[in-house]
Amino acid sequence: MTETLADFLDRLNHEIRLAGDWGSVADYIPELARVDPAQFGIAVALPDGRLLTAGDAETGFSIQSVSKVFSLAAVLGRIGEQLWLRVGREPSGDRFDSILLLEQEKGRPRNPFINAGALVVTDELLTGRTPRQALSELLGFIRAAAEDDAIHIDKAVARSEAETGHRNAALVHYLRSYGNLRNPPDHALGTYIHHCAIEMSCVQLARAGRFLAGLPDAPRMIAPRKVRRINALMMTCGQYDGSGNFAFRVGMPAKSGVGGGLLVIAPGKASIGIWSPGLDGWGNSLAGTLAAERLAEVTGWSVFG
Amino acid sequence: MTETLADFLDRLNHEIRLAGDWGSVADYIPELARVDPAQFGIAVALPDGRLLTAGDAETGFSIQSVSKVFSLAAVLGRIGEQLWLRVGREPSGDRFDSILLLEQEKGRPRNPFINAGALVVTDELLTGRTPRQALSELLGFIRAAAEDDAIHIDKAVARSEAETGHRNAALVHYLRSYGNLRNPPDHALGTYIHHCAIEMSCVQLARAGRFLAGLPDAPRMIAPRKVRRINALMMTCGQYDGSGNFAFRVGMPAKSGVGGGLLVIAPGKASIGIWSPGLDGWGNSLAGTLAAERLAEVTGWSVFG
Amino acid sequence: MTETLADFLDRLNHEIRLAGDWGSVADYIPELARVDPAQFGIAVALPDGRLLTAGDAETGFSIQSVSKVFSLAAVLGRIGEQLWLRVGREPSGDRFDSILLLEQEKGRPRNPFINAGALVVTDELLTGRTPRQALSELLGFIRAAAEDDAIHIDKAVARSEAETGHRNAALVHYLRSYGNLRNPPDHALGTYIHHCAIEMSCVQLARAGRFLAGLPDAPRMIAPRKVRRINALMMTCGQYDGSGNFAFRVGMPAKSGVGGGLLVIAPGKASIGIWSPGLDGWGNSLAGTLAAERLAEVTGWSVFG
Amino acid sequence: MTETLADFLDRLNHEIRLAGDWGSVADYIPELARVDPAQFGIAVALPDGRLLTAGDAETGFSIQSVSKVFSLAAVLGRIGEQLWLRVGREPSGDRFDSILLLEQEKGRPRNPFINAGALVVTDELLTGRTPRQALSELLGFIRAAAEDDAIHIDKAVARSEAETGHRNAALVHYLRSYGNLRNPPDHALGTYIHHCAIEMSCVQLARAGRFLAGLPDAPRMIAPRKVRRINALMMTCGQYDGSGNFAFRVGMPAKSGVGGGLLVIAPGKASIGIWSPGLDGWGNSLAGTLAAERLAEVTGWSVFG
Repeated sequence: MTETLADFLDRLNHEIRLAGDWGSVADYIPELARVDPAQFGIAVALPDGRLLTAGDAETGFSIQSVSKVFSLAAVLGRIGEQLWLRVGREPSGDRFDSILLLEQEKGRPRNPFINAGALVVTDELLTGRTPRQALSELLGFIRAAAEDDAIHIDKAVARSEAETGHRNAALVHYLRSYGNLRNPPDHALGTYIHHCAIEMSCVQLARAGRFLAGLPDAPRMIAPRKVRRINALMMTCGQYDGSGNFAFRVGMPAKSGVGGGLLVIAPGKASIGIWSPGLDGWGNSLAGTLAAERLAEVTGWSVFG
Repeated sequence: MTETLADFLDRLNHEIRLAGDWGSVADYIPELARVDPAQFGIAVALPDGRLLTAGDAETGFSIQSVSKVFSLAAVLGRIGEQLWLRVGREPSGDRFDSILLLEQEKGRPRNPFINAGALVVTDELLTGRTPRQALSELLGFIRAAAEDDAIHIDKAVARSEAETGHRNAALVHYLRSYGNLRNPPDHALGTYIHHCAIEMSCVQLARAGRFLAGLPDAPRMIAPRKVRRINALMMTCGQYDGSGNFAFRVGMPAKSGVGGGLLVIAPGKASIGIWSPGLDGWGNSLAGTLAAERLAEVTGWSVFG
Repeated sequence: MTETLADFLDRLNHEIRLAGDWGSVADYIPELARVDPAQFGIAVALPDGRLLTAGDAETGFSIQSVSKVFSLAAVLGRIGEQLWLRVGREPSGDRFDSILLLEQEKGRPRNPFINAGALVVTDELLTGRTPRQALSELLGFIRAAAEDDAIHIDKAVARSEAETGHRNAALVHYLRSYGNLRNPPDHALGTYIHHCAIEMSCVQLARAGRFLAGLPDAPRMIAPRKVRRINALMMTCGQYDGSGNFAFRVGMPAKSGVGGGLLVIAPGKASIGIWSPGLDGWGNSLAGTLAAERLAEVTGWSVFG
Repeated sequence: MTETLADFLDRLNHEIRLAGDWGSVADYIPELARVDPAQFGIAVALPDGRLLTAGDAETGFSIQSVSKVFSLAAVLGRIGEQLWLRVGREPSGDRFDSILLLEQEKGRPRNPFINAGALVVTDELLTGRTPRQALSELLGFIRAAAEDDAIHIDKAVARSEAETGHRNAALVHYLRSYGNLRNPPDHALGTYIHHCAIEMSCVQLARAGRFLAGLPDAPRMIAPRKVRRINALMMTCGQYDGSGNFAFRVGMPAKSGVGGGLLVIAPGKASIGIWSPGLDGWGNSLAGTLAAERLAEVTGWSVFG
């Protein structure tokens, strides 16, 4: 392209604001329901060390399910393949908080990105640790990946979710009933809710994802083979029952959160943090997904040719 | 790697034969049940025009569901996006011949690679054509892609499947009951059974897939944007309810058939035809999937970094 | 009650016509879609041989799924308990034409009153007989039960359903794919469609049901033990996924048809034929169900005390 | 019959002990897992005030889900029809502790006898009461129905279930997540576990069920119309996904519990308490169900003629 990437990001930011098609913020976590949907930010970390931004790229937001990528990476780095005895690797074809498949599959969640699977990952994170230690370790992992010690947990969001997260409470008890939870249900649930409540900006997210894109300046967090596998899981399962559609439109591994955050990986080329809090019908950022699609078109970063 | 790709393919061929872990051939199509499982072939088409082979790379086999990639390409080339009104783009999380989701989703198949979705694609292929014309057009498309006019339909396999394919007969009537079939059920079913009965060798398959890998010497069959989308669908849905596992282990878009064939695409790098008729529990080639995994490790062709 | 039963039936007839809440006629069988919904008839056969009627009790209608009671009785009379190897005895909790459970339960229909189960019963009916012979035998059974040789098949309805019954065609092929159909799919389907197209009036239906109520003047069709079992199946499964609600409101075994017919059995007390072609959301006669509920209240014929 | 009912019960008791086909005791509640399966008792309350017994008819056992009949009666007596806004009246076709349907039906349990439905009934029981008050009121209801103040809660069983009942904990949180639980989840769960832990003997159970059979000497607990409806629900849903089979074999409304208890109602004729702790594959008493079937054959008490 003759237009520089920096110029494109500015243009994208303006176009999205002009279009004003923001979707609706998640309403089941009161603290998130108050966020103004008319916000958009993007940050792109490149192999040459540059970090391009546009819009609200420095604004902190609740990363929610994007945190599942980091907890999975931390657990895979520690215990490796034996995780797959407890959780599958297939797209679920179902909503992120579905309990249906869990019953059909006797308590083994379909993949680590639906809530039930992420709760099992959190349970692994707790092995030999108190909830406080496990959270501290995970936060340390993310801070190291982003090389930014300012990243922290938003306690108000955690509190807000703890009061209303009955669906996740059901999942954790259900996992326990199948013997697929080793720690007390409230420990697993509390740790999960807190790591979902981590607050980051697009800039911090793009930097934290560099190790997944294999960028030269990324701190080495886990083995390249494990990186590839996490990217594969993001491609097939990262957007829940909208994953096929996202792969079709964008063609890059990505993980969304109901806070409107989106971590997109262009292997070897870029780590991208996007945020816009309004969601589409699958619970993924509406403007964020559109931005990722536009970026893929302009840059040719789709992994599919 | 210091070992050349040609040497690696020879070594892979020997290792797979030594291991002798072949799986079982499909037993529900009598004509396929007679095939000796202890066979393996691989062919790799490269950007420089070379075509490397090992094992039974010239032996013809029934491509079965691999044909769904070509019928999808032919239909997308002709009618484009409106196909997605009739069929979805999400992994199904269910067996290739499941009728469950079809009921839950009111007759709109989850994706074009499960049988129900492929029957809808075939129905589009029949628009304005007789079954004979539609088949001739599809065969023409594949011959043009492979630049090989010897590719043909194995009538004995088609006959064998017609006598026993009650599940597909159920699907086609079921689609009709939801108004998602325009042609007479027996036309759609007959055309589908015949295009699944196309016989190809690994060499022919690798050559026919070059347009999906975007190789320089490939005939231009459809627009690059559509190629990317077909690759995305192969990644998320190409191996049915084993797609997540395949993406995790291999990291390349691919489509399998119960005849044991496997078309694997490394965008920009290679088009790969693999065949070994013994299947794993998901109905995908056992040795073929292993070969794809080994190839990805050695070449670094995974799209995930 | 001081009001006689005959007077009550007249009052009921007037009240239902005054209320004018008729529901909608089945629209998926063109021939039935033309019937005027504003019709109501009732006939009550009593132990003393009297037959009380009100409204359109002599008008013929398509009995549709009510015929499943008679085909079940004929088959149980002939082969007995071995039928239960091929079909279950549990309420389905699903629509009458659902294919979902059939897949979950590997081709063994949940009960003989959902379409899939009735098709298996029809398949048994065909053992050693041509479709013509089987239909003739079933019609003979019904005529003998009603002691009325005027009962016949409405060929126009059968033709109408044959042209549009793609759902049943799917079911029959699906049963075949699981090996739970012995006769050619089109034989089973054709015989089924024709026995559903039998035309009867309320009077004929009430008379044909006397053997299920154990009325003294009923011809003995099958053993009392089998009668009890058919009544039990009507109670738990006779109104599809509205069976629980019907048992709750009416408290008598019954079988409905989408033609608006309803056969209700008060064991030892009465055999009741009701007809009103407009249906409720479960596909059962709206006014017919209301009439059965009112009759149960007034007579105390509920089996539940 | 020439044999008296008392003689038949003795013979039945001996035959069941001779056969020695006891099934397995429930293993998921540790306190119940210790019970010796080789026990059997039966008590039959008759309209003339007699109470016939055989076997271990005076031995106390944990009534478990049989208690759901009494909590439903107590709630229907108090609030009436509005309960049906929160819970359905259809057989579930699923296991007693399934969470599947709850998701498909957006948190409205299919009927009041599956665990999810009984938890909603318990939630109603708690309206305006503390758990202690609600339990005291329910116990009072049962004692009044049986005219026996010795009936009590087995605290050890309640404690045992509280420690292991993760599935019910999941259900209660899940109901809450759909807004179909008004009280704190642990209140509803605790009250439910305690009323399931009520201990009764066959004699006490038969006496407590007299109001459902409409026996002359029964205390009047609720209106006859409500009695009929509870009997209807027991017939269609009382044995979970084995209800159709039970209706087919026995033909009387009944409710089972995993403690091996069975309350069977012959409207106008008898209230029957049966107990044998070994269970069949549906979680219903194996010998108890057989005894009910034999009793129905000999007495002709089937409601189906």
